[in-house]
Amino acid sequence: MSTAHDHTGTAPRVAVVVGNPKPASRTLGAAVHLARELTGAEPGLVVDLATLGPALLDWSDPTVAGLVAEVGAADLVVVACPTYKGTFTGLLKLFLDRFGTEGLSGVAVPLMLGAGPGHALAPELTLRPVLTEIGASVPTRALYVVDAAHDDPASYAAWLERARPVITASLHDLPRRAGATA
Amino acid sequence: MSTAHDHTGTAPRVAVVVGNPKPASRTLGAAVHLARELTGAEPGLVVDLATLGPALLDWSDPTVAGLVAEVGAADLVVVACPTYKGTFTGLLKLFLDRFGTEGLSGVAVPLMLGAGPGHALAPELTLRPVLTEIGASVPTRALYVVDAAHDDPASYAAWLERARPVITASLHDLPRRAGATA
Amino acid sequence: MSTAHDHTGTAPRVAVVVGNPKPASRTLGAAVHLARELTGAEPGLVVDLATLGPALLDWSDPTVAGLVAEVGAADLVVVACPTYKGTFTGLLKLFLDRFGTEGLSGVAVPLMLGAGPGHALAPELTLRPVLTEIGASVPTRALYVVDAAHDDPASYAAWLERARPVITASLHDLPRRAGATA
Amino acid sequence: MSTAHDHTGTAPRVAVVVGNPKPASRTLGAAVHLARELTGAEPGLVVDLATLGPALLDWSDPTVAGLVAEVGAADLVVVACPTYKGTFTGLLKLFLDRFGTEGLSGVAVPLMLGAGPGHALAPELTLRPVLTEIGASVPTRALYVVDAAHDDPASYAAWLERARPVITASLHDLPRRAGATA
Repeated sequence: MSTAHDHTGTAPRVAVVVGNPKPASRTLGAAVHLARELTGAEPGLVVDLATLGPALLDWSDPTVAGLVAEVGAADLVVVACPTYKGTFTGLLKLFLDRFGTEGLSGVAVPLMLGAGPGHALAPELTLRPVLTEIGASVPTRALYVVDAAHDDPASYAAWLERARPVITASLHDLPRRAGATA
Repeated sequence: MSTAHDHTGTAPRVAVVVGNPKPASRTLGAAVHLARELTGAEPGLVVDLATLGPALLDWSDPTVAGLVAEVGAADLVVVACPTYKGTFTGLLKLFLDRFGTEGLSGVAVPLMLGAGPGHALAPELTLRPVLTEIGASVPTRALYVVDAAHDDPASYAAWLERARPVITASLHDLPRRAGATA
Repeated sequence: MSTAHDHTGTAPRVAVVVGNPKPASRTLGAAVHLARELTGAEPGLVVDLATLGPALLDWSDPTVAGLVAEVGAADLVVVACPTYKGTFTGLLKLFLDRFGTEGLSGVAVPLMLGAGPGHALAPELTLRPVLTEIGASVPTRALYVVDAAHDDPASYAAWLERARPVITASLHDLPRRAGATA
Repeated sequence: MSTAHDHTGTAPRVAVVVGNPKPASRTLGAAVHLARELTGAEPGLVVDLATLGPALLDWSDPTVAGLVAEVGAADLVVVACPTYKGTFTGLLKLFLDRFGTEGLSGVAVPLMLGAGPGHALAPELTLRPVLTEIGASVPTRALYVVDAAHDDPASYAAWLERARPVITASLHDLPRRAGATA
């Protein structure tokens, strides 16, 4: 995959954003697993929103602003949260609310965990439109994982089989896309 | 309407919840206006979430828990926020995330303000399902108001004409509904 | 409940609309069951769209126009279909496309059946907004039933317990609502 | 772009599907315009569903089955319809209901036209999830165009500027993606 990134001389920038009120949650574990499986490497940035605290409510906080910029510049972002009330968490949305219309310049993967299968449509119907609204390209289907099976590779396997070539190709395309818009 | 409320001897309990990061916002003005127009009285409780601060991030905070209980017991709740990224704000969702599956026992009215007409479907498609998920009955269509026209009665008139009889009837029904479930 | 309907001297008009490409489907059975459980009587009108055939594609067909008018005037309509591609069927939408903005003047109950639990959010997130768009009041949560359990009363019991008093009250309110808009 | 398609020796297969009950509609014009602007060539297949008639209601019709197969195999499909009742038309959904879970193997672009700006969220929130459900990759934001401006290039320009490099890259990727799944 190296030639695709000759323009930068570096691997793709991969970020994970986790909107679970509990730090170091299973959601985080699932999101990092997904990033690793999609790219073959550890994500360069993991934003565990639960650790940011009240800064998230302060629209002038420089730490949050820095994270928004860094996530916004990533080539691939896995955006993950548990399912609360049939949709994404307020914690995650607090962070996403900071992004401008083209705030996410790369590819995003929506991931949601939930207590049971009944909310499986939530990431595709509720989280994904938020990510496209802030500029992300979301070329794969969103992924929903039942909590209890969050550490079962089978929860990800079928999705990964379809998503990996799409994501790989998208990361390959970065210089081409950049060129096309230049 | 008095007989309908003989069970309590009081007027219906009406609450307004506002999820605008700016306190005393136009969203609040619009929501209070709606509550007043629907019931002919001032709302008994106005929760301006922006004033709660970091307590909203603390799941054990007793003030927030008290407000959740009070809003949950209201007969009518106007739930309002601006449109951020095509949907409700993180601030509003932070609060709604505290409610249980049957946390809202009364009737809810979803109201969203937005910069332009392009997000007019947002309250019906994104906010309303959250309110039904936490138990509310949402018998009217959701309302979307363009920011710049927030103080123009015409922004509310057509909606009010259709919604008022439905809401009035729902408040009449409270004892009957309570009786039916007893 | 009789006094509530003194204005007409008749029982509430109850209709069932079924958008399953197969006539006399389990969807139809489930919808009629729901109507019966909600009102204590057989629905006065059952529209099994599969039996209408090509007339549904002919926007000038008088039979379809007549059914649109009759369903539109019902006090309560159960609108039911299987889940195709995560949402309502094209067959059902063909019929709903005929209704004007205030084409449904009564209360609607969205019901969808599906092969598994994964599409449980579909009726609330996808069918319900269509019904409110054409004027219906949808005061209950939408209902999703897994196909294989369509004839198990337990698939409906919890929903019915919450919905019945709301629907009963809504039917009681008909004269009051009509009066309020007069 | 030729080298990207050396595996086939042909240009990408581009299809347009139009779900407007009126044949040769403005929707069709807009969809063909979009396909042309995205690829620099005329679409190889235009399915104007209004011309298919009752065959769309016959699940065993071979003509419809053939079109489903052909559209499903396209590298790029523009899927377009007017906005009816806040969402896609029944006519379009009748056709999409024929596709299997991985029935669309390429990239899809959702396009909806509507009478006013108020339904602008409809393609992203309602049509796009149907396309991903049947297997499509939808790497761009969905596009909404106001009817009256359907022949104004400005209705497409900003969207095209962002979408063109993404779509171009996706078509480049076809052999790579095919290889990755082989």
